[in-house]
Amino acid sequence: MQNFTLHTPTKIIFGKGQIAQLSNEIPKDARILLTYGGGSIKYNGVLSQVHDALEGYTVEVLGGIEPNPAYETLIKAVEYVRHHEIDYLLAVGGGSVIDGTKFIAAAVNYPHDDLWEILTTCGAYITSAIPFSCVLTLPATGSETNNISVISRRKTGDKLHFVSSVIFPQVAILDPEVTFSLPSRQTANGIVDAFVHTLEQYLTYPANAKVQDRYAEGLLMTLLEEGPKALKEPENYDVRANIMWTATQALSGILGAGVPQDWATHMLAHQLTALHGLDHAQTLAIILPHLLQEKRSVKHAKLLQYAERVWKFTEDSEEEQINHAIHATRQFFESMGVKTRLSDYQLDGSSIPAMIKKLEQQGLVALGEHQDITLDVSKRIYEASI
Amino acid sequence: MQNFTLHTPTKIIFGKGQIAQLSNEIPKDARILLTYGGGSIKYNGVLSQVHDALEGYTVEVLGGIEPNPAYETLIKAVEYVRHHEIDYLLAVGGGSVIDGTKFIAAAVNYPHDDLWEILTTCGAYITSAIPFSCVLTLPATGSETNNISVISRRKTGDKLHFVSSVIFPQVAILDPEVTFSLPSRQTANGIVDAFVHTLEQYLTYPANAKVQDRYAEGLLMTLLEEGPKALKEPENYDVRANIMWTATQALSGILGAGVPQDWATHMLAHQLTALHGLDHAQTLAIILPHLLQEKRSVKHAKLLQYAERVWKFTEDSEEEQINHAIHATRQFFESMGVKTRLSDYQLDGSSIPAMIKKLEQQGLVALGEHQDITLDVSKRIYEASI
Repeated sequence: MQNFTLHTPTKIIFGKGQIAQLSNEIPKDARILLTYGGGSIKYNGVLSQVHDALEGYTVEVLGGIEPNPAYETLIKAVEYVRHHEIDYLLAVGGGSVIDGTKFIAAAVNYPHDDLWEILTTCGAYITSAIPFSCVLTLPATGSETNNISVISRRKTGDKLHFVSSVIFPQVAILDPEVTFSLPSRQTANGIVDAFVHTLEQYLTYPANAKVQDRYAEGLLMTLLEEGPKALKEPENYDVRANIMWTATQALSGILGAGVPQDWATHMLAHQLTALHGLDHAQTLAIILPHLLQEKRSVKHAKLLQYAERVWKFTEDSEEEQINHAIHATRQFFESMGVKTRLSDYQLDGSSIPAMIKKLEQQGLVALGEHQDITLDVSKRIYEASI
Repeated sequence: MQNFTLHTPTKIIFGKGQIAQLSNEIPKDARILLTYGGGSIKYNGVLSQVHDALEGYTVEVLGGIEPNPAYETLIKAVEYVRHHEIDYLLAVGGGSVIDGTKFIAAAVNYPHDDLWEILTTCGAYITSAIPFSCVLTLPATGSETNNISVISRRKTGDKLHFVSSVIFPQVAILDPEVTFSLPSRQTANGIVDAFVHTLEQYLTYPANAKVQDRYAEGLLMTLLEEGPKALKEPENYDVRANIMWTATQALSGILGAGVPQDWATHMLAHQLTALHGLDHAQTLAIILPHLLQEKRSVKHAKLLQYAERVWKFTEDSEEEQINHAIHATRQFFESMGVKTRLSDYQLDGSSIPAMIKKLEQQGLVALGEHQDITLDVSKRIYEASI
C-alpha cells in the first residue's frame, strides 16, 4: 500500500426528508446565496423544501450554472457575491452546480486578479474560501464530499480542474427521493460516471491494498445491479439510495487512498466535452473501453481481478477473461443508454488533432498510472474510439 | 437503507515515516500533553520519533493509561491538564490510550463537577473538548478516527462508553511499521476486535444497503486472509498495512451508516472485562459465537449472506451453512490464539448473576438490533459461553 492522506470532513446527512436539517447546520445569521442550475429544482419540489428549511434566513438566489459549469458564468457570480455581502453559499444541484459553487467560494477572496489562474495552477494559490454546503440532486460526480472542482471555459475550449483543502462542502444533504424525477439520461450518466470514477482508481496495477480493492469491487457490483433497476423503477427508494451512496463513495477519496490512480480516461474525455459539448458520462463511455484495450498489458493483473471478482468470468484463458470484461463494461454502458463510440454521436475523427493539441497545451503529455500515455498513445485511443 | 448522518472529520495520515508529519499538523504554539500507556513506545522507537517530530514544541508527558482505561487514572490526568495550562493532547498508543485521551479532552472543561456523569449520561452534557490528535500503535478499536470512548471504573466494576461530536481526533497518524514489534497476543486481539466490530454492524437484518454490506464483507475477508499472516510474518509491511486500515475502517462509522446495528456482544462482553479483567478481544470471542447461535433465527438472512459471501459456503442446507459459518468464525478466533469459552480462562459461570445485575443496573435490558436480548436472553448467552 502506498502512503496516503485522507481527509473527508464533510458532514453527510443522508435520507428521506433530510433537507429539513439545513437549519440545524447553517448559522442563523448567515447571508446565503443559493446557487442552482437549469431550474428543475423549481418544479420537483426541492427548492421549496430548501426554502421551507431556511425560513427566517437571508437567502438570495442565483440560477443558471450550466452542465460543465462555465467560467464565464461563474465570474459573474463571484462579482455578485462580492457586492451583496454574501457569506455562505448553498449549492442545490448536481456536480456541476457544486463544482461551480466551489469555484465561487474559492474565487471571492482569491489573492490575484486573474481568476482563471485558479484552474491553470490547480488551486495552488487559494488561501481561503467562504463556507458552503450542498443539497445533492444528481448522484454522479462525488463533488458533494470532495475537494475537487472541474470548470470549463467556453471561449478557449478548456476544461480544467482544481483542488484545495478549503473547498470541502461543510454539509452535504443527500435525499434519494429528490432523484426520483431525474430524466433517464441523467440517471444513466450518473451511474456511468460513478462506474468510471471507481475504475480510474482500481484498474491500474496491484498495490496489495485489499480494502481499497474490495471497496471498489463492491461499488462496481452495486452499480451493475442497481443501475438497470433505476431506469426501470425510478421511484424505488432503496435502488436510488444505493446509487446515491455509491456515487458519493466513488469519489470521496476512500477508493484512491494508498493506491495508484489512472485518470487518463477523464483527461482525454474532457477534451471531447470541451470541443463537442458531449455529456461528461458520454465522453467517459467513449474513451474508457479503448483505453483499457490500449493499456491491457500493463493493467493485466487488475483487469483479470476485475473480470473475476466483478464479472465472475473465471473460465477461459486470462486474455479471454479480460476481453469479456472490457466488452461487458461497454455493454453495460450501452444497456444504460450511453453510447460508446464517437460515431454514435455523429462525430468522426476530424477533431482529434485539435484535441491532441489541447492535451499538449495543458501539459497532459504523460498520463495514466505509469505516465506512459503519451500524445501518440492518446491519439491511438481517440482513433480507436471513432 | 435507513437515514443516517456520517461525519468523519479526522485527517488520516497513513504510511511509513508519517509520524514526522506531526509538526505540519499541530499548531507551533501548542502546549502539548503526550499521553501513553505502559511504556512500550519508549523501547520500540515510537516515542523518539514523536519527540523528533515535535522538536521545538512544549511537550509534557504522561504515561500509565492502562488497557481498559481507568476512570481513577484519568481524573488525575484531568487535574494535571488543568494545572499545567495544557491546550493540546497527543495520544500515542492503542485504543485504550486514545479512549482515555478523549475522556481527558472532554473532561477538562466539563460543566459539572462529577466527571463520571460523562459516562452515565453517554456524553450528553459535553459542550467542548480541548483539541487532540493521535499516533496509533495498535490497530484494533477504530478509536483513532471515531468519536466513541469506553472507560472503566475499577471501584465499581463499570465499563461504560460515551459519544460526542467534539471528541474526534484532529489528526490520526497510522504507520504500519510501528506495529511490527507488537506481541502476538495484541496483534491477534486487534484482529478479533476489528472482526467483531464489523460483524456487529453487519449481522443484523437486511436493510438493502448494498455498499455497506460489501464494505463489511471486504473487511472481514481481508482480516481472514491477513490475520494469520500477521502472526507468521510480523514484519510484512503490506499485511500490517492492510490490517491497520481494516481496523480503522471497521469502526470509522462507514459500516454502520444506514444499517441496523447490534452491539449486544460488546455490552455483554464489557461485563466480563469489568469483573474478570479479560482482554476486550477475549471477551468478544467468548460472547459472539453464542450470541449468534442464540439469535440465529432473527439473523437468518444476514447469517446466510455471511456464510455465502465471506466464507463461500454455498453447498448444504441454509441451516448447515449458518452452522458452518458460526463454527468457522469461532475457529478463526481460536486459530489467532484467542480462546472462545469462559472455561478456557479458568472461569465458571459463578459470576453470571453479578454480570446480569450489572446489565440491569446499566439499563442494558433490551439489547440487539431488535431490542429483544432481555436479561433472560443475556443469561442464556453467558451460560452457553461457559
